[in-house]
Amino acid sequence: MEVGAGTSHPMTCLRAIGPEPIAAAYVQPSRRPTDGRYGKNPNRLQHYYQFQTIMKPSPDNIQELYLDSLRVLCIDLEVHDVRFVEDNWENPTLAAWGLGWEIWLNGMEITQLTYFQQVGGLECKPVTGEITYGIERLAMYIQSVDSVYDLVWSDGPLGKITYGDIFHQNEADQSTYNFEHADINFLFIYFEQCEKECWHLLALEKPLPLPAYERILKASHTFNLLDARKAISMTERQRYILRISNLTKAVAKVYYTSRETLGFPMLKKGENK
Amino acid sequence: MEVGAGTSHPMTCLRAIGPEPIAAAYVQPSRRPTDGRYGKNPNRLQHYYQFQTIMKPSPDNIQELYLDSLRVLCIDLEVHDVRFVEDNWENPTLAAWGLGWEIWLNGMEITQLTYFQQVGGLECKPVTGEITYGIERLAMYIQSVDSVYDLVWSDGPLGKITYGDIFHQNEADQSTYNFEHADINFLFIYFEQCEKECWHLLALEKPLPLPAYERILKASHTFNLLDARKAISMTERQRYILRISNLTKAVAKVYYTSRETLGFPMLKKGENK
Repeated sequence: MEVGAGTSHPMTCLRAIGPEPIAAAYVQPSRRPTDGRYGKNPNRLQHYYQFQTIMKPSPDNIQELYLDSLRVLCIDLEVHDVRFVEDNWENPTLAAWGLGWEIWLNGMEITQLTYFQQVGGLECKPVTGEITYGIERLAMYIQSVDSVYDLVWSDGPLGKITYGDIFHQNEADQSTYNFEHADINFLFIYFEQCEKECWHLLALEKPLPLPAYERILKASHTFNLLDARKAISMTERQRYILRISNLTKAVAKVYYTSRETLGFPMLKKGENK
Repeated sequence: MEVGAGTSHPMTCLRAIGPEPIAAAYVQPSRRPTDGRYGKNPNRLQHYYQFQTIMKPSPDNIQELYLDSLRVLCIDLEVHDVRFVEDNWENPTLAAWGLGWEIWLNGMEITQLTYFQQVGGLECKPVTGEITYGIERLAMYIQSVDSVYDLVWSDGPLGKITYGDIFHQNEADQSTYNFEHADINFLFIYFEQCEKECWHLLALEKPLPLPAYERILKASHTFNLLDARKAISMTERQRYILRISNLTKAVAKVYYTSRETLGFPMLKKGENK
């Protein structure tokens, strides 16, 4: 399902809610229609990969754990300049914010590290620590290339296959679709539909927070496509974001209750150990 | 994006078209709404994982390569009964068919092996070999559990986390959504929209086969949801499948031409090696 970032995946956004511990890591393909550049920009894509890591409760030594992960990637911290640049994070559509840092390697942003303070309008107790690696950026650094399309993806019997071989046509074509052909009228209808379905799923006698949350993901991507099509004015923009944010807050509450009803099963697991 | 199988991913379905070589492996989350059982069946899910492997041209020793992969998983082929059961494959929506085998381990299907003869109505030259592993099935075998929900996903500081801990609530809620709440009227509208957009993208002066193909994926998943809602009669069913199949054939042709126009770049790579 199309999402703009690993944070939007339910494994992060929903699991950050409530007292249950979680530790997860996954590659998240991310789509950001407005970031498309028709495959002509060496560093900006409408589809790229994040390596998403979350830990709840956030370990005290998360920054040291992060630096260790760079060492594993053979990045010599004695030689290179790694900086934590304060950059508190806010995501209005997820009704979420946190204390955070951009992490710069020799002046290039390669990671975001965030302590979630609030998700879906709910205070995070305990706090989730999130580390989001920009995989392409790190790979470009490690391979010393200036264009993402020059990254060597593999070098086997077929010869050197680059990132460009795999993704360039897709970047060009999807940019054209996002900016020029996505059907504005239908996207407005679809947004309304996702919103309507989401409220319906939450209002059921036995509500369905997980399917409801997926309606939010679809509404968000639809909003992002409308944004790429420049179909939403500045003033409308805020109203759309507020509508998504209201959905997220409602899903968060219902999700919390659903986990409470199950007896917060992951919490008990942690205690048994 | 929701797909029923790794075969539907463009990295398989589209890359199987034309003369360019490819070798790829990936985990594909797969959604099959009608297979949902509300989390009550130990072996049947509306969301599960496939490990998808494709090789074009298909190597002569693909069956031996496959058996080696079982050895890597520590499955002793001297002790266990591995059978190749002929099961030629046909996927009408992909306008595809191939010679194939189900592979059974002690009587349980764990893999499908297929040589694609035709995809999108085009003859495959050369033939692509596809190996699709059922990851949950293999894991259940290796861990000797009878229910997928009892699989140990991880065993770290949080204690034993099972597949059920991660996915059971999702299976129950998504089954309820798929069978009882997906909006039938809107799904019909959405199917028409995907079809209309797909034809539009193919009819452009410079056609967009990759975005057009994604409209097919959305139409297919929509069809599967309508199927789960029992909203399509037996006779209508064939007509819907034919409509998807016609789209796939059209995309396949346009995709082939787009790669030809680019000079089949992957082909040249192989030759240079």
